[in-house]
Amino acid sequence: MSAIAFLEPDAGVIARRGAIIAGLVECVGADGLVSEERELKPFETDGFAAYRRMPLAVVLPKTTAEVASVMRFLHAEGVKVVARGAGTSLSGGAIPEEDAVVLGLSRMSRILEIDLPNRLARVQAGVTNLAISDAVDADGFFYAPDPSSQLACTIGGNIGMNSGGAHCLKYGVTTNNLLGVTLVLADGTVTEIGGGALDGAGLDLLGLVCGSEGQLGIVTEATVRLIAKPEGQRPVLFGFPSSESASACVSDIIAAGIVPVAIEFMDRPAIAICEAFAHAGYPLDAEALLIVEVEGSTVEMDAMLRKIVDIAHRHAVMTVKESQSAYEAALIWKGRKSAFGATGRVADYICMDGTVPLSQLTRVLRQTAEIVAAYGLRVANVFHAGDGNMHPLILYNVNDPVEAEKAEAAGMDILKLCVEAGGCLTGEHGVGIEKRDLMRHQFSKAELDQQMRVRAAFDPAWRLNPSKVFPLDDRGAA
Amino acid sequence: MSAIAFLEPDAGVIARRGAIIAGLVECVGADGLVSEERELKPFETDGFAAYRRMPLAVVLPKTTAEVASVMRFLHAEGVKVVARGAGTSLSGGAIPEEDAVVLGLSRMSRILEIDLPNRLARVQAGVTNLAISDAVDADGFFYAPDPSSQLACTIGGNIGMNSGGAHCLKYGVTTNNLLGVTLVLADGTVTEIGGGALDGAGLDLLGLVCGSEGQLGIVTEATVRLIAKPEGQRPVLFGFPSSESASACVSDIIAAGIVPVAIEFMDRPAIAICEAFAHAGYPLDAEALLIVEVEGSTVEMDAMLRKIVDIAHRHAVMTVKESQSAYEAALIWKGRKSAFGATGRVADYICMDGTVPLSQLTRVLRQTAEIVAAYGLRVANVFHAGDGNMHPLILYNVNDPVEAEKAEAAGMDILKLCVEAGGCLTGEHGVGIEKRDLMRHQFSKAELDQQMRVRAAFDPAWRLNPSKVFPLDDRGAA
Repeated sequence: MSAIAFLEPDAGVIARRGAIIAGLVECVGADGLVSEERELKPFETDGFAAYRRMPLAVVLPKTTAEVASVMRFLHAEGVKVVARGAGTSLSGGAIPEEDAVVLGLSRMSRILEIDLPNRLARVQAGVTNLAISDAVDADGFFYAPDPSSQLACTIGGNIGMNSGGAHCLKYGVTTNNLLGVTLVLADGTVTEIGGGALDGAGLDLLGLVCGSEGQLGIVTEATVRLIAKPEGQRPVLFGFPSSESASACVSDIIAAGIVPVAIEFMDRPAIAICEAFAHAGYPLDAEALLIVEVEGSTVEMDAMLRKIVDIAHRHAVMTVKESQSAYEAALIWKGRKSAFGATGRVADYICMDGTVPLSQLTRVLRQTAEIVAAYGLRVANVFHAGDGNMHPLILYNVNDPVEAEKAEAAGMDILKLCVEAGGCLTGEHGVGIEKRDLMRHQFSKAELDQQMRVRAAFDPAWRLNPSKVFPLDDRGAA
Repeated sequence: MSAIAFLEPDAGVIARRGAIIAGLVECVGADGLVSEERELKPFETDGFAAYRRMPLAVVLPKTTAEVASVMRFLHAEGVKVVARGAGTSLSGGAIPEEDAVVLGLSRMSRILEIDLPNRLARVQAGVTNLAISDAVDADGFFYAPDPSSQLACTIGGNIGMNSGGAHCLKYGVTTNNLLGVTLVLADGTVTEIGGGALDGAGLDLLGLVCGSEGQLGIVTEATVRLIAKPEGQRPVLFGFPSSESASACVSDIIAAGIVPVAIEFMDRPAIAICEAFAHAGYPLDAEALLIVEVEGSTVEMDAMLRKIVDIAHRHAVMTVKESQSAYEAALIWKGRKSAFGATGRVADYICMDGTVPLSQLTRVLRQTAEIVAAYGLRVANVFHAGDGNMHPLILYNVNDPVEAEKAEAAGMDILKLCVEAGGCLTGEHGVGIEKRDLMRHQFSKAELDQQMRVRAAFDPAWRLNPSKVFPLDDRGAA
């Protein structure tokens, strides 16, 4: 695949590589720098591995002060900077340019403060998502957003992409759980945005930074909300005779004002793939499956589940499986959680990430199938239905360049369909490099220009993660 | 009071008043323009009535196209613009400059679309907050943020100030319930931001516009989230022997992971004032009172209330009054809802609006009392305790200029205290003109400069509501 263009590298910067590396060693010490080709290899790409570029160098600071010093130096030298957490981006958000320095946050992985009375934690940006929940688990709290990669991905990356997860229906995505950040600006200035208390005066830069994909500055620390663990959690599995009936059931649950923690959707191909792998007891005769999870006290869960089961029966549900034990609950989730791995055993795939209004689910699922079939490929759908966040997995053979190109084209068509249906071309994976050139389908020229002017108010020289989010041409016009 | 400075009017614009009015008539017709001094009077000030200025004119467009035409014209003429909803701002957000045109949204009060399957409504910016809930009430939905002024205030003003209300503990403030806006930029360009589906690609301009106090553009339409009404709602009244015990009870409710719809706090002076007015049966022997409201089905409410009452008993609660009927529920709320009116019968007052972390509530309440006493004045506290949003009412005599100045000074000291305690100088009323000069206490110069650069990316000439939010000097530096 070579459809996505990169910026032309700056020959002057490439020529000064030795001096730049020497300057970075001044900032962080020799042990904080990666510059050997062999060691740079893992930083060439991220979870969107179809594209790769060897960066100029990788710098691994340990403190906000070191990040500030690195940024001051690179600003003075006119060098591009790509921030990187764990490199799990599915949209290529951390793929570097050849003339860019990768600023890795992996050595900034300390939890700085846990403040239970105020229900918050202050952490360095390189801490993993799951480490936050682990640190407060014994006290009965957790950090809510739960991307599938939560064992590996960092909170800094989550902030860059405004990451979500299966349980975001109730608790929201990263932006709803973020209270403050320390942001080092392009010129090395250290700023504090937000903090422990409600709201912030003046402009909401915190919301702006969340999801800005490393283009406004480097987040070095974050203050996040902790949530008290519920007394209990219980998933229920529903099998439906059609995607239509499952979609209608989702809409009715939401319309009834019930807020489950999660409503996950799988279509027939996904059910078959996951069941073959996980033996979770999924109904192979169902055209669509929902996993609905509720939480709270036993009496609260019972009350909610009664309403949800009633609604499902109004939509011709064929199978209802309430978990009666922790073992059964884990089994129900096991199939869903292994979906990507299980799919990978059957075929190569690309995972798309678009959102649609709930009322459009049925139509978009049908048209998605039509689009993929027209390219002669297959699709499996497994996604967060409660908030309309779709994840079509397009199956193809990675060693067949023609199929690979078809898969990518089908993916782009599906995202355009999401936009046309009133949705968005990214739910939780970000725009990155993958969807950069689709931004014109989502936004008018005036709207993109306004976004680019705001971006330029942070980084007028366009040196922070510059190949991402915005189409490469047109930038001067902003 | 004359502590707050205004910008010097532009004599050139004042001199061209006749031509500017003629041009505006071209845009909206003669019936869309207010230019007689007698008719301009109501637009001199807003809910922060200590300050007032007569604007150049008031223009009242009826459509987004008319707003765009007005903005194009005023942009070309170099005239300042102050957007105005219902003029209920408590921080002076809609007070005009003498050389500014007030752009009133009052004639844009139509509900454009109600989309129940997707739980959203699209409305013009001049529609009142309560009108949205009224329009969907029969279908079992409502719009959640509920400022005290909800009968009068407009959704456009709510967006400008990121307004909250008593029930925001559960449902969040405006930014959590806003899905999209139509924003007319300073030069008249019409842009769409956000929309009906989850998230938005690229930079989160929607969050940025929410709370931007009319400085980034004119919001002409909004898409807001509708929420299904709960089966039932039930408030409980608690009387405590001290503010400390009431504060600790609030912290423990939140820490237990219970999310009531509202937790309202009143101290002894507020209890006495409200009870004398509303005869709500408030316990006059209590030092502090909490109103905790839960909602859901009967079984859900029972379960939550049991836990809440248990927690209250751990904090030496003296009085527990569970409402047994709609009448009793209304009575419990009647005292709280009449708090501002009841206070106004006793004395003049200014209502401050700051937030603090929950763990700081007790200390900040004590120091607030000390600050106000040191000025020889009295204070009553009635506020949204669940999210740490304080509203000290400082009582004084408006006809005594010395007392008035002391009240204002005490208010500023209290807001500085909130910031020092890790909180924010505004919870839901906005910065406006009132707290503009306190922004330096909340933010470093680099942080304010960054906010101003973002503001300038929308309005480089600083003509949109220019006297507000940011200190008047220093602007060049950004």
